[in-house]
Amino acid sequence: MHAAVVTRFDGPIEIQDLPVPELRPGQVLVRVEASGLCHTDIHAARGDWPVEPALPFTPGHEGIGVIQHVGAGVTGRAVGERVAVPWLGYACGICDYCVSGRETLCESQLNTGYSLNGCHAEYVAAYASHVVPVPEAVSSFDAAPLTCAGLTTYKAVKVSGLRPAERAAIFGIGGLGHLAQQYAQIFGAETVAVDVTGEKLLLAAELGATHVVNAAADDPVRAIRDLGGADVAVVLAADPRVLQQAHASLRRGGRLVLVSLPRDNAMSLPIFETVLGGISVIGSIVGTRADLAEVFRLHAAGRTTVKYETRKLDDINRSFDDILAGRIPARLVFEL
Amino acid sequence: MHAAVVTRFDGPIEIQDLPVPELRPGQVLVRVEASGLCHTDIHAARGDWPVEPALPFTPGHEGIGVIQHVGAGVTGRAVGERVAVPWLGYACGICDYCVSGRETLCESQLNTGYSLNGCHAEYVAAYASHVVPVPEAVSSFDAAPLTCAGLTTYKAVKVSGLRPAERAAIFGIGGLGHLAQQYAQIFGAETVAVDVTGEKLLLAAELGATHVVNAAADDPVRAIRDLGGADVAVVLAADPRVLQQAHASLRRGGRLVLVSLPRDNAMSLPIFETVLGGISVIGSIVGTRADLAEVFRLHAAGRTTVKYETRKLDDINRSFDDILAGRIPARLVFEL
Amino acid sequence: MHAAVVTRFDGPIEIQDLPVPELRPGQVLVRVEASGLCHTDIHAARGDWPVEPALPFTPGHEGIGVIQHVGAGVTGRAVGERVAVPWLGYACGICDYCVSGRETLCESQLNTGYSLNGCHAEYVAAYASHVVPVPEAVSSFDAAPLTCAGLTTYKAVKVSGLRPAERAAIFGIGGLGHLAQQYAQIFGAETVAVDVTGEKLLLAAELGATHVVNAAADDPVRAIRDLGGADVAVVLAADPRVLQQAHASLRRGGRLVLVSLPRDNAMSLPIFETVLGGISVIGSIVGTRADLAEVFRLHAAGRTTVKYETRKLDDINRSFDDILAGRIPARLVFEL
Amino acid sequence: MHAAVVTRFDGPIEIQDLPVPELRPGQVLVRVEASGLCHTDIHAARGDWPVEPALPFTPGHEGIGVIQHVGAGVTGRAVGERVAVPWLGYACGICDYCVSGRETLCESQLNTGYSLNGCHAEYVAAYASHVVPVPEAVSSFDAAPLTCAGLTTYKAVKVSGLRPAERAAIFGIGGLGHLAQQYAQIFGAETVAVDVTGEKLLLAAELGATHVVNAAADDPVRAIRDLGGADVAVVLAADPRVLQQAHASLRRGGRLVLVSLPRDNAMSLPIFETVLGGISVIGSIVGTRADLAEVFRLHAAGRTTVKYETRKLDDINRSFDDILAGRIPARLVFEL
Ligand SMILES: [Zn+2]
Ligand SMILES: [Zn+2]
Ligand SMILES: [Zn+2]
Ligand SMILES: [Zn+2]
Ligand SMILES: [Zn+2]
Ligand SMILES: [Zn+2]
Ligand SMILES: [Zn+2]
Ligand SMILES: [Zn+2]
Repeated sequence: MHAAVVTRFDGPIEIQDLPVPELRPGQVLVRVEASGLCHTDIHAARGDWPVEPALPFTPGHEGIGVIQHVGAGVTGRAVGERVAVPWLGYACGICDYCVSGRETLCESQLNTGYSLNGCHAEYVAAYASHVVPVPEAVSSFDAAPLTCAGLTTYKAVKVSGLRPAERAAIFGIGGLGHLAQQYAQIFGAETVAVDVTGEKLLLAAELGATHVVNAAADDPVRAIRDLGGADVAVVLAADPRVLQQAHASLRRGGRLVLVSLPRDNAMSLPIFETVLGGISVIGSIVGTRADLAEVFRLHAAGRTTVKYETRKLDDINRSFDDILAGRIPARLVFEL
Repeated sequence: MHAAVVTRFDGPIEIQDLPVPELRPGQVLVRVEASGLCHTDIHAARGDWPVEPALPFTPGHEGIGVIQHVGAGVTGRAVGERVAVPWLGYACGICDYCVSGRETLCESQLNTGYSLNGCHAEYVAAYASHVVPVPEAVSSFDAAPLTCAGLTTYKAVKVSGLRPAERAAIFGIGGLGHLAQQYAQIFGAETVAVDVTGEKLLLAAELGATHVVNAAADDPVRAIRDLGGADVAVVLAADPRVLQQAHASLRRGGRLVLVSLPRDNAMSLPIFETVLGGISVIGSIVGTRADLAEVFRLHAAGRTTVKYETRKLDDINRSFDDILAGRIPARLVFEL
Repeated sequence: MHAAVVTRFDGPIEIQDLPVPELRPGQVLVRVEASGLCHTDIHAARGDWPVEPALPFTPGHEGIGVIQHVGAGVTGRAVGERVAVPWLGYACGICDYCVSGRETLCESQLNTGYSLNGCHAEYVAAYASHVVPVPEAVSSFDAAPLTCAGLTTYKAVKVSGLRPAERAAIFGIGGLGHLAQQYAQIFGAETVAVDVTGEKLLLAAELGATHVVNAAADDPVRAIRDLGGADVAVVLAADPRVLQQAHASLRRGGRLVLVSLPRDNAMSLPIFETVLGGISVIGSIVGTRADLAEVFRLHAAGRTTVKYETRKLDDINRSFDDILAGRIPARLVFEL
Repeated sequence: MHAAVVTRFDGPIEIQDLPVPELRPGQVLVRVEASGLCHTDIHAARGDWPVEPALPFTPGHEGIGVIQHVGAGVTGRAVGERVAVPWLGYACGICDYCVSGRETLCESQLNTGYSLNGCHAEYVAAYASHVVPVPEAVSSFDAAPLTCAGLTTYKAVKVSGLRPAERAAIFGIGGLGHLAQQYAQIFGAETVAVDVTGEKLLLAAELGATHVVNAAADDPVRAIRDLGGADVAVVLAADPRVLQQAHASLRRGGRLVLVSLPRDNAMSLPIFETVLGGISVIGSIVGTRADLAEVFRLHAAGRTTVKYETRKLDDINRSFDDILAGRIPARLVFEL
């Protein structure tokens, strides 16, 4: 099969012809139809993070496809089902995180496209317990970005406790942000979309943003505080300075949700304002299988719009470059 | 009446003989019996914070005494009732914070011993709506430290969402910390008390700490992680370095509560660990009247022990010095 | 002034010419523009409930109008403001319910149009603390039904904990139900509207219901369970049999919210299904001032549609008859 | 092996000599040391409930013992570990209930001693994923009643949202009630123990009840309302009349938790009081593996006391009779 393979952290990804993967007990074989490209793939391929993936490996954790085979001991999934293969490739199922609905914190988790071979390939072997069925009303190409970008932002909004009639500020309206904004609206909030390009702010307005702020022209802190301040701020721009702005734009009782991982691993948190304002800063990491099922259900109900471009897998290196150069307005999805 | 008065931010507090305060509509006159000294009094008297109090003023927001007169329009309070006069001296009662149970975030609040004359005096004028009755089973000298130190730490534990069978780490076992520890235990948690003096750790053990860590001798991060990590960390030491330790001692899903205001208004928050660990950092500021009533009820039920020393009001300047020099193990209360 | 007055529980309401009410301290005088008719007005006028109102009195607790005078000691409200005068006419502000955001449970509350003279009159005296400003974007005639029907159903959905991607069943699509359905959608849920008339189900569909069930033709329990069951059921039909159906339509983990008061004060609760299904039955009574402000904000943001007919106050007795006969599809509002 | 076997619903349980059970994939073989007797065992053995267990079967779902063998595909558990085998013998691990921390609602669950052979035997085959390790500090005889009676009451208190300084009323201080009371205290509440025998009320007082009420002598509703009413009521007496009393003893905002299954499957719920009082009635069914681990952790920390008597398995029929006759003050545990 055709597969993208990272063989070294300092060079391009190779497209190789590999045997179809063999299944471990509990796994299913998925014929991938669509595989979304996530910024995490770039970090994985470059060994950016403290615990590097073992080489060689195939990245990709927004894979959608149909189950071709089921391995030993699989229950609950069947050949022919169309499923998503997300970042949370496996969790132990018995630790207190797993049992209490917080499987994304499982210390024994395996991650697709990182510690498990991923979805930028024609086939992927995935643990049956952790693939998520895709409803018929959701196309594979919509489902792909929903599987990480959608899930991550949905969960971010969920853990923020955002409620109807509150105001949410979304910093960065790209592949993640345009979904975060929609989820904030689904949770009943009015939204303020903050970005530095007019094109993205047009998209935000079209998707229903109550307000848009061009941070290249206006101070977003002042603009949001003039509206009364934000109850929730979700930051999709991996930049500590934007985190500071987001914090400063909160009204009392506000919540700042962190989901992106900036290169510089530190945010300077103003203690005085945090204490006096009763502010919370909340870390959120992807979402559970139940969250992803909800994301799909909302899309099937017509409540979200997914913006993406399709690419050929052979274009993976160019695609990385395009993302790093900021040339991609929303999300890329490989056709397989 | 005898009263402590701040007349300048760069000199000692004066003890003056002043007329008994006149009541504004809605106020009651309280004959103070006990008035606790809080570190905030020192910040107020020195003008340490961005918005300084107007000079001259009387500090003190842990006052306990009996109502002598009720002003025009007072309902719900009567002469002869013993009440606490807390930091939250007035809140508007109609903003969304006030109406939704978050009055400590009210933008129109007045603060006792800061924007209102406080309790380090024989009499204090207080808004009837914001004094809190003290149950008969609670002595005025126990009630005083409960009114800010108790309330602040009780609320900190409450907003952390601490639950039975979780583990709470308390950093700093002084006037606030010894109460924080007890509240963590009342919420059903096991506790790890962290301090740098053996004497305070002995107190913590006597009050029921499951574990004690002497941070002068051992690395508290390692010690707590060896136990499995903390679900909640409450930091009473106003030191950004301790905040970092507290954050690092959390297990996944952990919550760090900020209540103290360090001189250096910045904590360096590690984003990677916060996101991957699903960690929350929560600012908490004193507590509401309902919280204080709960604090008193718990004390009346025999569930808390308050450590304090009594002083004469004339000793206020020496008392400030003792606190700043770290010579006071728990809390000081003025007899009036 | 022109006012509707209940002089006896067993006869018609009289339209009288009364002096403009005098203000107690803390009250404002409101020139009523629109006053919604709630089923509770009928119960009040007939003395249906255990604690009867004192005769004579003016009913009405969905009043919208402009402040003409402010009484002694009023802060926070000014002449010229347009406000809503809701059922919760006064709450004490100091009990634990009031302080913790649950003022609708205050044991000292006074209720507009019941223990206080109400809004079916040209003028009403209302406590300044408990009127709620109406945003300019909300017309007085939309605001009136929102003040009780909107508030009550918004709160019902709120206390249910309804979340995006859940399914809410609304039993009874009249003056309350058509709003309950919209709020369920604003909280992100899909909705099943249940009624016995095609006309109301058409309205539900037009307002975005995901499914409609004509309970005159189909068994709603079966219909809803075929969809997977309801996570939340809100019952606006004051009929114990409908409550049983609503309970039976829940899936495990479901919540049944009670808001209406049937004449027969008893629901037969099946214990086995409640325990094994982990089901909650939640009583909900109107909402707080903060909830009402949210209701108005959502309407100002264009997220709700209010269905009503206007009437002259002189038609109040005929209006009661029309409601009791089920001839009114949505809500009646008196022009004043 | 020696095992208790139900062969018919209308006759005594037989003690048989059976082969040691064979393991299905994913199961472990546990040598039972202690097996608690739960009232549910009696319902199971008599076929009292709508879905009867298939005959013959072995009841018992409070089994504690050591793992002797691990079956095919078992991960996470090892020979030599001492574990509890609870009512929730298996849940699917992939439905939304399982993934969101609510596995006790899983529609595919299997129940120990009901749809799976249970623990009243020398050996039991149990799914490795659903046994729960017992800490060394917890004896097998304490662990047995904790595995259902403890777990069920702990969860009941947990779902009630009981908080420090609230008041919990426990109706029925037997095998479940004496634990419910202790958990209420661990959650920080004061407790009112209600029973009809002086002996049980003495036990309640000894375990720290703030108040005791002998319902044979006094009206518990009046007694509890005189204290200010209960915030939470947990009813362990399977009697609809007691449920009514419990409901009537609540103050506004109160929560009534249902855990027991009375023979007469109906509670008459007063709608007026439920709505006006903002009262919730919450069904709660056992607890998850994470809850059970918490129960054990609390016991290991010395926070609970378990009252039980031991019996020989041969005495099972007499033990049933003793329980039905009300002759057993707390819990029975079989030695194996
Ligand atoms: Zn991703
Ligand atoms: Zn796990
Ligand atoms: Zn203080
Ligand atoms: Zn306020
Ligand atoms: Zn009140
Ligand atoms: Zn009404
Ligand atoms: Zn399941
Ligand atoms: Zn049981």
